[in-house]
Amino acid sequence: MSETISPLAPAHIPELPEISGVICRIARARYKEWDRCDLTYIELAQGTTVAGVLTKSKCPSPEVEWCQQALSTGLARGLVVNAGNANAFTGGRGKEAVQLILSMVSNHLACAEEEIFVSSTGVIGVPLPKDKVETGLNSVFIAEPCSWSEAAATIMTTDTFPKMATTSALIDGKTVYLNGIVKGSGMIAPDMATMLGYIFTDACVNAEFLQEMLSAATSKSFNCITVDSDTSTSDTVLAFATGQNDTPALNSFKDPGADAFQAALSDLCMQMAHLVIRDGEGASKFIEIAVTAAESDKSAKRIALSIANSPLVKTAIAGEDANWGRIVMAVGKAGEPADRDKLSIGFGGVTVARDGLVVPDYDETPVTTHLKGDEIDISVDMGLGHGKATVWTCDLTHGYIEINADYRS
Amino acid sequence: MSETISPLAPAHIPELPEISGVICRIARARYKEWDRCDLTYIELAQGTTVAGVLTKSKCPSPEVEWCQQALSTGLARGLVVNAGNANAFTGGRGKEAVQLILSMVSNHLACAEEEIFVSSTGVIGVPLPKDKVETGLNSVFIAEPCSWSEAAATIMTTDTFPKMATTSALIDGKTVYLNGIVKGSGMIAPDMATMLGYIFTDACVNAEFLQEMLSAATSKSFNCITVDSDTSTSDTVLAFATGQNDTPALNSFKDPGADAFQAALSDLCMQMAHLVIRDGEGASKFIEIAVTAAESDKSAKRIALSIANSPLVKTAIAGEDANWGRIVMAVGKAGEPADRDKLSIGFGGVTVARDGLVVPDYDETPVTTHLKGDEIDISVDMGLGHGKATVWTCDLTHGYIEINADYRS
Repeated sequence: MSETISPLAPAHIPELPEISGVICRIARARYKEWDRCDLTYIELAQGTTVAGVLTKSKCPSPEVEWCQQALSTGLARGLVVNAGNANAFTGGRGKEAVQLILSMVSNHLACAEEEIFVSSTGVIGVPLPKDKVETGLNSVFIAEPCSWSEAAATIMTTDTFPKMATTSALIDGKTVYLNGIVKGSGMIAPDMATMLGYIFTDACVNAEFLQEMLSAATSKSFNCITVDSDTSTSDTVLAFATGQNDTPALNSFKDPGADAFQAALSDLCMQMAHLVIRDGEGASKFIEIAVTAAESDKSAKRIALSIANSPLVKTAIAGEDANWGRIVMAVGKAGEPADRDKLSIGFGGVTVARDGLVVPDYDETPVTTHLKGDEIDISVDMGLGHGKATVWTCDLTHGYIEINADYRS
Repeated sequence: MSETISPLAPAHIPELPEISGVICRIARARYKEWDRCDLTYIELAQGTTVAGVLTKSKCPSPEVEWCQQALSTGLARGLVVNAGNANAFTGGRGKEAVQLILSMVSNHLACAEEEIFVSSTGVIGVPLPKDKVETGLNSVFIAEPCSWSEAAATIMTTDTFPKMATTSALIDGKTVYLNGIVKGSGMIAPDMATMLGYIFTDACVNAEFLQEMLSAATSKSFNCITVDSDTSTSDTVLAFATGQNDTPALNSFKDPGADAFQAALSDLCMQMAHLVIRDGEGASKFIEIAVTAAESDKSAKRIALSIANSPLVKTAIAGEDANWGRIVMAVGKAGEPADRDKLSIGFGGVTVARDGLVVPDYDETPVTTHLKGDEIDISVDMGLGHGKATVWTCDLTHGYIEINADYRS
């Protein structure tokens, strides 16, 4: 947790409503040498359904492997999040720590281990110490319920502000609520979730259908953000539906309110994903990159991510330099269909280059003004087809180097 | 050209021998507001053969497109290199500038335009001004021959030192010489050459066979280096064989001396590629990453490049932090076959993690000492098969941000 809050942090922190069937508690497990809560425990009402999207890393943490397995039942009663230690690449001892959590929490709740979900975040390669797990859990079980903002703060590691989002949807004339808490500021890139994010709703949603809706929502949000192109071994997004609101169950898009719920879920994921970028390590600019007229949506997304991950583009934006040549470079290296002479590039709605060269009488003034702001829009028209994609990133600054050249110590 | 020379610059600059059939000249075309030579013109004896490897960027410069076309003849008489302006993404006006060069130089040498090779390097998006091209060429045509080091200095842009290499080979008991000059320090990544590099030899080599040997040499050298994962629109490596040394012509590996020549060419390419990394923008550490026991060589190279391109790995090395967890992360995100529990990782020959977790009684002292040096070795044993690859990169420091957040102005 840094002492300086990101300059891109939202001015307004939303007030999150209670979600019936969800109780948050926090405690000090002291996974690191710090005096803060670092263990989050969330109890979920019986019958809560769950869906999840997990890292595609080939070296995932044991927590991720467990969540993948447990998701098959579609039911959840508890969530444990450890901050300060990712417990990744820790061999058998890492697995034992996860097993201890499953055993203690399932005993406490008198439920199946498969109904317990676990995440850990922080340094890789150090096994989660079992004694701290045990002390932490015994303490959190008897802790008073805490607020959403306290839970959001407790899952933080290098984050500079707690990240929360909320929205609602109407199902059968009745309001259901969706809350999200999320952490992450570095090691952020598709695929997939690129951080830890948890979504809670009091709606009643069939687990398979929740999975379908969550996958759709993450593909346009969490999977469209990148801070540094680095994908974590622990990335996790889980969605829990307690069903405690007595609205009709959602089983498919044929059900009334399902479209509204999907829209709300997608909106919540987008809010959460943007919060992560707004806390990108060292970020001073929030950058939206929209690629249009590519050969396909998939091609557009690859091109957009090639731009978003280019250190030269990211440093140019940090330097408030309308260096569209670096955008051409990033388009060219994406390996996707491109015709240099059909390409158009704009900043903040002003077209800088069209059909392969700078526009006649190019006036840099409005572009420079746009780049001095902290919300940067880059648009790329490939001039080829109908494919489009939008991704979000932040600039690459001295702050990133400061944070990451001295993170572990 | 920076005022501070890279701390990784070689202490010893080699003395390059003359290559019979090659004459270098330089002049001031003043492509930028600077007082230095920025136009290099190299005359090649009649009968010189040529081979080349060019950027895979989908948005290449007109120079690259021209070189690709001209390579089909296999013959070369002249090379022009413009520094300070890449002439990329400049539409018809950029092509006209290339055409002017071809026309002037082919007239001057009384040869075909297809025997003239052209490269430009520097800012993208500004057409090479034809008046400066004309003045520059007229001036360079009458300039005195210059040294190899003057030519190497003239092709520089953000480079902090001129880059030269030399070697020799025995063909039929007689020595042939190979010289190389190269520029590049940012926008460096496969595929392919990732900078401008020119190789000259007095050996007599069939053009097709020269292409075969050059492709083999670049795949293990220029295509195994990365500074920032960004691939330039202008990347070019050209090899010229004047045949002025009266050794027997090399037409295939069956010819005596062909193996020796390939070895020398590969060595020269490696020297040149390493020089580029030693001038990586902001670099303070030269990093070698060797991946072994992967499923295939191709898989090993992808994993090695995933590590080499990871901002989190590169900043950890800058911070002299043996953060092998970030290496696991980079292995995991490569998308190649990996088994977390078979992975071993070492720094400077000391194994830090084996079979999925930190080694028993891990002593960080020798690793920390290694990381304080400026030559860092990272080894990754995948524990799967026989695939291996070695790539080179540098660390990511404040220097990179300084150079690139304010490059164009």
